[in-house]
Order: sequence, then structure tokens, then C-alpha cells
Amino acid sequence: VHKQNLVELKQKLEQLHPADIAYILEALPLNERLLVWELVKSESDGEILLEVSDAVRETLIESMDAHELVAAAETLDADELADLAPDLPRQVVYEVMGALDDEEREQLQSALSYEEGTVGALMDFELVNIRADVSCEVVLRYLRRFDELPHHTDKIFVIDDDEVLKGVLSIRKLLVSDPDAEVSEVMATDVVTFHPEDDAEKAALAFERYDLVTAPVIDDAGKLIGRLTVDEMVDVIREESDSEVLNLAGLKEEEDLFAPVIDSLKNRWAWLAINLCTAFLASRVIGVFEGAIQHLVALAALMPIVAGIGGNSGNQTITMIVRALAMGQLQVAQAWRLWRKELGVSVINGVVWGGVIGSVAWWLYGSFPLGLVMTAAMTLNLVLAATLGVLIPVLMQRAGRDPAVGSSVLITAFTDSGGFFIFLGLASLFLM
Amino acid sequence: VHKQNLVELKQKLEQLHPADIAYILEALPLNERLLVWELVKSESDGEILLEVSDAVRETLIESMDAHELVAAAETLDADELADLAPDLPRQVVYEVMGALDDEEREQLQSALSYEEGTVGALMDFELVNIRADVSCEVVLRYLRRFDELPHHTDKIFVIDDDEVLKGVLSIRKLLVSDPDAEVSEVMATDVVTFHPEDDAEKAALAFERYDLVTAPVIDDAGKLIGRLTVDEMVDVIREESDSEVLNLAGLKEEEDLFAPVIDSLKNRWAWLAINLCTAFLASRVIGVFEGAIQHLVALAALMPIVAGIGGNSGNQTITMIVRALAMGQLQVAQAWRLWRKELGVSVINGVVWGGVIGSVAWWLYGSFPLGLVMTAAMTLNLVLAATLGVLIPVLMQRAGRDPAVGSSVLITAFTDSGGFFIFLGLASLFLM
Repeated sequence: VHKQNLVELKQKLEQLHPADIAYILEALPLNERLLVWELVKSESDGEILLEVSDAVRETLIESMDAHELVAAAETLDADELADLAPDLPRQVVYEVMGALDDEEREQLQSALSYEEGTVGALMDFELVNIRADVSCEVVLRYLRRFDELPHHTDKIFVIDDDEVLKGVLSIRKLLVSDPDAEVSEVMATDVVTFHPEDDAEKAALAFERYDLVTAPVIDDAGKLIGRLTVDEMVDVIREESDSEVLNLAGLKEEEDLFAPVIDSLKNRWAWLAINLCTAFLASRVIGVFEGAIQHLVALAALMPIVAGIGGNSGNQTITMIVRALAMGQLQVAQAWRLWRKELGVSVINGVVWGGVIGSVAWWLYGSFPLGLVMTAAMTLNLVLAATLGVLIPVLMQRAGRDPAVGSSVLITAFTDSGGFFIFLGLASLFLM
Repeated sequence: VHKQNLVELKQKLEQLHPADIAYILEALPLNERLLVWELVKSESDGEILLEVSDAVRETLIESMDAHELVAAAETLDADELADLAPDLPRQVVYEVMGALDDEEREQLQSALSYEEGTVGALMDFELVNIRADVSCEVVLRYLRRFDELPHHTDKIFVIDDDEVLKGVLSIRKLLVSDPDAEVSEVMATDVVTFHPEDDAEKAALAFERYDLVTAPVIDDAGKLIGRLTVDEMVDVIREESDSEVLNLAGLKEEEDLFAPVIDSLKNRWAWLAINLCTAFLASRVIGVFEGAIQHLVALAALMPIVAGIGGNSGNQTITMIVRALAMGQLQVAQAWRLWRKELGVSVINGVVWGGVIGSVAWWLYGSFPLGLVMTAAMTLNLVLAATLGVLIPVLMQRAGRDPAVGSSVLITAFTDSGGFFIFLGLASLFLM
């Protein structure tokens, strides 16, 4: 790249929104990424670091010296700093903390004290508070004194002398209210509030359900301590769905597309290893029946069908149940009822599809009993899949574990080994 | 249930938010659901119908007569009506349309004219417009004349005499501005706008990236025709991720948990049928090598491992690529580079894990050549998986298809059949 071009590129980058620069950085291979990163004007460094994915953030932070990192971090609010802190060198965090005023330091420490995935870790502290006993006119005059209202401000929090939340005054309401009306008359008191220990995904569901833009976070005494905004909740929803999909595919986390091979290996090896174990288990089940296969080699060709369809059907059931549990739409008490339904689905599928494939086996290998065994094995494996598809997530939920993690691997392991065992076992009993 | 209880239940339901009632309805089995639905006071029927999932909505609409449906639909805005219209009996839609005024009817027709999944189908028409040449004071007085501002109003749209969008005035800005300042001085002119034909998922990405609450929708001439709000975008993100997960699990769409067995069968049969075909194909590949298996029955036990690990690894690669394509982070031109990287990952995985499992096979069956064939077959199948994992989504994208749909099934089909072919083929060549 020529110097001339670099200057032009720099000018173009300066006009872009930090989120756009983050997006460009993510789409570039490492060397080009660092070149662009060098060009980006430093005052938005902090914001860009917040926007990029974890994997890309690491590469950017590695390329910066402590001085640059401190400069970038100093442009951020306490809650943003808390998001970035875990990725920064400890020395940098201390230096930035030293430069904060007492209130900000307290906010930072409070934000850092909450676990990832809780409301406390996501809340910010840009609160506009008023008292209930003033008029709307006074509120409007008070707001005019701000240089800028906090982003996403759609409501103002009404608190008493002890900072206890009494209600919220929506800006939409404020704008249409009589200026002489008292805040207490126009504020809403049935407010959706959150506690800092609340689960962030549950909070996101509430934002979705009640179409919220911001919501207050209060402590056990009802004291207002922060607020949640919809942009953070959108990120939670996106991350939740991302991790669900990555999980299903056997990836630990999102990868930097252009990460070195070693990083990709690290991200993927755990699931491959688990799958290797379950595949080995299934292989040993087959090993037990080697005599039967030797005797009737058609079994070797047909057995993957029984195992495969069982896995597919089990994953259909388990996905439904896991989703229903996650959305809180399924009580464990109703599992019995659902199981009967899934059983119905699996028996019909088994008889129909098992019948089809059994007929094909009969025609291919000229053996009616073989076809019959195939149909019976398919049906039984589908019944196993339906039963475990309900049972596994419900039991995991009861044991206090997240049913979304690992249940797909578990059911596939069972339907594979189970499918081989059922099919080869039936064949040994009835065909030998 | 006693009459007394029903009265109490009715009172409790009346106090709930429509979204909460929708949530309860979704979690109830059909007969109890309809019981509760009868109790819900009719004025929020329309809103509740909007909130529930498609599958549940069908059951509710079926239970209502035309008169009730018209009453429910009449409580809705044009854009909400457009969402509901496809599920309503045609006669009901006509009747409701007849009761609309000209402007609303035009809006409804416009909303209905855009395809599902476009911005046009999601926009609403609750626009607050002003001219650029008035003062902020005038705007504030104008707003005060509203009974209620449209939900989510965070900005006002500035238009000229031809209704062409000139800028937006954010409420946050309005509140802190000098009342005498002219709108043209304080409005923002670098506005993120959308066209009605734009893809809704792309729009949701923009909302996410720029942390928007509302955004204007304009036509090709720049004329303001509607607006998007973040609550709709959150729904788009949720639905997108839902359909991704359901798709991966082989479900056509979200199921009503308590749907009759027949509905579940309909939702699931297509993927099972496809999987049956691919499994049958793999079975035929094995059939070709029945002689080799007869000769060395250990092959039957080992072959599912080769196929299974290939499928897992291929799904890891394809998930990464599909996500990167969906986020626009991967240009087809870079596919070559990524392929080389995935190749590196797969060769290392093949040599390491293939080596492990090859050693185990050597130890189990006492044959060093068998172990070697196992390792070689694993490596080759992983290379195949990596190659197709990059190639399939890139080719689908180029052909103008959505790479997310069906690519997982395709790669599993290839790595299954391919794995059996490679392993049994190598065994035939070197072990017989």
C-alpha cells in the first residue's frame, strides 16, 4: 500500500461510526487488520474495542502498548470499562482506576463485582433522577441544563430522599403533560424493575415481552442503583442465540475467522474428543455383534440407517423441549404428558418410515424377516429417542444444569449405541 | 374448575399485560388454553393474538367466531393488522378493511404488499413529523397537543413540503436545546434510513450496530413512508436465531408444545425423509464393500467412527463459514485463504485423533496395517469435511441461496458416505 493511499484510507476511516470500523476490523486478516487499527484515530479506540468480538479484541489489545491502552480506556464510562477490564493487562486497569473519581471508581468496582451473565454486569450508571413532588415544568427546566441526556433515555427515574425508586416518568408522557402537573400525578408506578443478581437472559426476555427501552435496576431495599438499556439486551439475545448455534455445532465460542490454526484447534478439540469417545462406545457395541455381522453382512450396511434416524428424531424432540424449558413454558410436571405425545409421534414415524426402509431391505436382500427386524428396530430406536429426548433435558433442568449444553451430544450417543444394539440384538435373536 | 374460581381467575387475568397473557396461553394445554382465552377481556384480544406464536395463534383464532375476530382486529393499527391478516379468515379481513378510513386502508394495503422478511412488512405508520423551519419551542408545543406520543418515540422526523425526509430531531436533543433554536440547527442529517424492500435481518443488524430505537423508512424519492422500531427488530433477531436452531435440529418451525401428534408429524417429516435418503445412500456405499467386511468384520465396527468424526468436524467448519457469510464478514474471494486454514486444522486433527483411534484399533484387533488405514481414512475424511465445509456455503451463497438452510444436512451426507467409502476403499486396497 502506498503512503498516499494510507492517507486517504485514514480520512475515510475518520468519518466512520466506531461500530462500522469494528465491523471492518473483524472482516480483515490479521496483518491488514493491524494496519487499519494503526490508522484509526485514537479517541474512538475504546469504543471500537467494546464493539469487536472477543477473539478480535485480543488481537487488537496485543498490538497496543500500555500507554495507548490507558488512553483508550480513559475515554470510557465505568460500566464500559468493566466490560473491557477482564481483557486488559492488570497494570493498565489499575492505572485507569487511579484516574477515576470516587463515584466512578465505586461504580466500576460494583460492576466488576457481578458475575458475567447477570444484570449487574450489564447495567450502566447514567441515571437521570427527579423527585415526585416537583412539577413537569421544573423537570423540563432541569433536563435543559444537561449538555446531553444519557443515550437511550426514554424515562426518568423518580426517587425519594433515600434514593428508593418510587416510579418512572416516561419522556413521552412528560412531553404531553400539563407543565403544572406534579410528577407524582403523571409518573407510572407499576414499573418493571430488575435486581443486579438477576439473570441477564431473563431480563432480555422481559425487555422483549414488555417492549422496554430502559429499565431501572434496584437493590433489595428498593434503592435505585443503575439502569438497563435495550441495546445491551439486544446483545444478550444475539450472544445467547450465537452460543446456542455454536454449541450445537460443537464449537466452544465464536472464532476469529483469520485466527491461526492453533486457536481454531483449541476451540474445537473438546467436542471432537467427546464425539470420539461416544463414537468409540458405539463401535464397541458393534464389536459385540461381530459374529452376527459375519453371518449376515447386510446388517453392516443397514445398521447406520437405524442409528442415524434415531439421532435425528431425538434431536428434534430434545430441541423442542430445551427451548420450551428455556422460555419457561414447560413445567417439569407436564413432562409426562409431553412424553406420551412424543411417544405417539415416534411410533407413527417408526411404523411408517421403518416400514418403508424395511420393505426396501426386504426387496434388496430378499429376506422378509430382515425387513421386519429393520422396521422393529427403527420403531424401538425412535421410541428410545423420544423417551430420552424428553427425559434428558428435564433431568438436567432438575439437577440445576443448563439443558442446552451437551444434551444434543448425549442423545446422539444414546441413539447411536442404542440403535446398533437394538438392531443387531434383534437380528441375533431372530435371524441367526 | 368451580365457577367461583373462574371469577377469581378472570379478575387476575384482567390485571395482566397482554404479553403475559400470551405467555400463559402458550404454556397451557389446548383445552385449558381455550378456557383461559374465553375469560380474557375482549378489548386486548387483538394484542394478545399478535403476541402469541404462530402455532398457538391458529388454535385461538379457530375458537373465535367471525364477529369476535372482527372486534379483536378493529382494536389494532394498520401495521398490526397486516401482521395478523394472513392468519384471519378472508371474510373477516374484508369486513375490518371496510371499517377503516382511507389513510388507514392505504397503510394496510401498503404493509400487505411487502413480502414477509422485508422492512416494509414490519414498519409502522405512527409518524410524528415537523418542518425544519420552526423553533424547538414550537415543536414542544406541538407535541403537547398529542394525547399520547407513539410508542418508542425517541426522535421526530423532519420533512419538507414534499414529505421528503430532511433529518431527524432526537427527543434527547430537543429537551436540552435552546427553545428558540430552529429545528434545522439542532436536527441530525446523517440519518440511518431504510427502504421498504430492505431485508429485515439486515435492518436488525443495523439497529444492533448503531444502537437505534427507531429509524425512518423512505421510498426511492426520499419520501418518508413509515418507521421501524427496536421492539420489532428484537423480534426479528429472536426469530432469526430460533429458525437457525430449529433448522439445525431438523424442525420446519416452532411447534405448539401441546399440538396434536399429527401437527408434530407434519413439522418433522420432511427432514426425517431427507435424512432417510442420505442414510440410505450411505448404506448403499457400505453395500458395495460387503465383501471386504465379510473378510474383515472389524471394518464394520470401526467405520462409524470415521464417518461420525468427519460429520462433526465438517459441521464445525460449515457453521463458522455460514455465520461469517450471514454477518457479511466473509467475501467469497477470501474463501481460498480460509480453505487453506481449515485444511491445516483438519490435517492436524486427522493425524492426532486419527492416530489415537488408529492405535486403539491396532491394539484391539492386533493389526498394525488396520490401524494405519484407520488413521489415513480419518485424515482424508476430515480433509473432505474441511473442503466441503468451505465450498458448500460459498457455492450456495454464489447461487443466491441462503447457506444456512440445508448445508448441515448436505455436509453430513457427504462425510457419512465419503467416510464409509474412503475407509472401506482403503481397506479393500491395502488389507485384502
